[in-house]
Amino acid sequence: MKVLIVGTGAIGGFYGALLDRAGARVSVVCRSDFETVEAQGIEIRSTLGEWRFRPAAVYRHAGEAPEPPDYLLLCTKVLPDIDRVALIEEAVGPHTTIVLIQNGVEIEEAVARAFPDNVLISGLAFVCCSRSGPGKVWHQAYGNLMLGEWPEGAGSRVADLCDAFCRSGIQARAMEDIVAARWRKCVWNAPFNPLSVLSGGLYTSDILEAGEAFVRRLMGEVCAIAAATGHPLAEDVIDRNIADTRKMPPYKTSMLLDFEAGRPMETEAILGNAVRAARREQVPAPHLEAVYALMKLRERRPASADRPPT
Amino acid sequence: MKVLIVGTGAIGGFYGALLDRAGARVSVVCRSDFETVEAQGIEIRSTLGEWRFRPAAVYRHAGEAPEPPDYLLLCTKVLPDIDRVALIEEAVGPHTTIVLIQNGVEIEEAVARAFPDNVLISGLAFVCCSRSGPGKVWHQAYGNLMLGEWPEGAGSRVADLCDAFCRSGIQARAMEDIVAARWRKCVWNAPFNPLSVLSGGLYTSDILEAGEAFVRRLMGEVCAIAAATGHPLAEDVIDRNIADTRKMPPYKTSMLLDFEAGRPMETEAILGNAVRAARREQVPAPHLEAVYALMKLRERRPASADRPPT
Repeated sequence: MKVLIVGTGAIGGFYGALLDRAGARVSVVCRSDFETVEAQGIEIRSTLGEWRFRPAAVYRHAGEAPEPPDYLLLCTKVLPDIDRVALIEEAVGPHTTIVLIQNGVEIEEAVARAFPDNVLISGLAFVCCSRSGPGKVWHQAYGNLMLGEWPEGAGSRVADLCDAFCRSGIQARAMEDIVAARWRKCVWNAPFNPLSVLSGGLYTSDILEAGEAFVRRLMGEVCAIAAATGHPLAEDVIDRNIADTRKMPPYKTSMLLDFEAGRPMETEAILGNAVRAARREQVPAPHLEAVYALMKLRERRPASADRPPT
Repeated sequence: MKVLIVGTGAIGGFYGALLDRAGARVSVVCRSDFETVEAQGIEIRSTLGEWRFRPAAVYRHAGEAPEPPDYLLLCTKVLPDIDRVALIEEAVGPHTTIVLIQNGVEIEEAVARAFPDNVLISGLAFVCCSRSGPGKVWHQAYGNLMLGEWPEGAGSRVADLCDAFCRSGIQARAMEDIVAARWRKCVWNAPFNPLSVLSGGLYTSDILEAGEAFVRRLMGEVCAIAAATGHPLAEDVIDRNIADTRKMPPYKTSMLLDFEAGRPMETEAILGNAVRAARREQVPAPHLEAVYALMKLRERRPASADRPPT
């Protein structure tokens, strides 16, 4: 199994290292840490152990790969100024399966349209890992994957990839309806990620304590949108999300971590796409609309003041 | 005309000084700056000139006033932990007219209920002034007042007070429907004040540039609530508010100034009361609800972290 990872940050480095452990031939496209990774590989510190992942090859651009991989894993953030098609098109061959390990809802279509004849696997990572330095990945907790073909189904390409991941020590589940799984994850993400930022840095536990009714309202709107798109979620999905969050230790969302570090946030992938789906399906989602409008204001630097937002 | 000012900050100090100029006998209740004001009076730096206002008497508590005033002007902020009735009750006599120079909507009833036999004047100040130091008021711009009896009408007490203010150099307008005037002011306040805070410090011009559609939606909800309470606003009130804001220089709202200075914000008076009116009147106001919920989160210190919100 030949694998190419595009976007070799924490997520790409971690899952690439796992497939390498499982016996795949894993090459990586790596921009910011290119020199370090080429010279030393990627140092993995994980709940699964500590090891150094030596990619079969390290490229600056996908076009440098001499032959198309069996699986191309795209692991970048989903941001308006990242052209995902351009990032991968030179490396995609006629038999390459494209795998998105990315956040958000309704993020597949742009890629699917560009590669109509390739199998597209959409994947969700439930993982807590971060880049702890150049060529260093720190996997702190969890790690499960959900993988399914887009728009639906879970054929042999999904099964083979799940098998490889499972051999490496994490759980990877084949999903017949990965789109529903994305909406299910969005039920949590759409409230907690932006609220952690807009509240000025509250942990999930604080948000829940001070704003549970509001969180539930946002979750309810996500459920309504999911249902309108043909992916109704379980009746108790909101109660379970609330209960699960209550069990978690006080937690800073990834969006808050990005915001505090001055990195771009996945506002569009997580919240903007949900709001656009609501508009398209004509499902009222005024609370999500309000949160989205506020996030767009929050992301803005004041034009009238020569200083960053505080 | 005997006047007692309760809450002698910037607003109370400024309007007290004006009534003094107009020939009234003005005493003040003043807590934080008591010593300075008792010794030196209040230094006024205004577009109307610079002068020192020497109150007829300076008290720490309203109960120290030996006789009830003709007019008691309450000029504190409207905050959940300020008991406005307790602040004034010892100074209110049977013939005292109570005058609220305060922000917000539906802020009168609590005071009216406590003093059912007194005339209550509700007043709106359109003024830009601040406390520039102990016993120092800096009046930077505007200054107009709207005064009307609550719940409606504008009898002789209103007329006399307007006359006094007008003699002092500012415009004071007698309003037959002061409640509608409060809702009209809320059309601007309910979006711009919280959005300036939740956006991380944007000026009005930035908010308008990046979020005009959202601002208009919030304004529309305020208009619907006002109409449901029996105070329909003019058809073009939103367009006029937008146009007027566009003409203003980039402006930091009072709520943003309070937030940046770590002072409590009038979230409840401006936004919470509007939302509660919407619920009572069963007018849908989901965007205001969302902004209100976010302000309650924004005001919260994270319980799980030993640090203030950033």
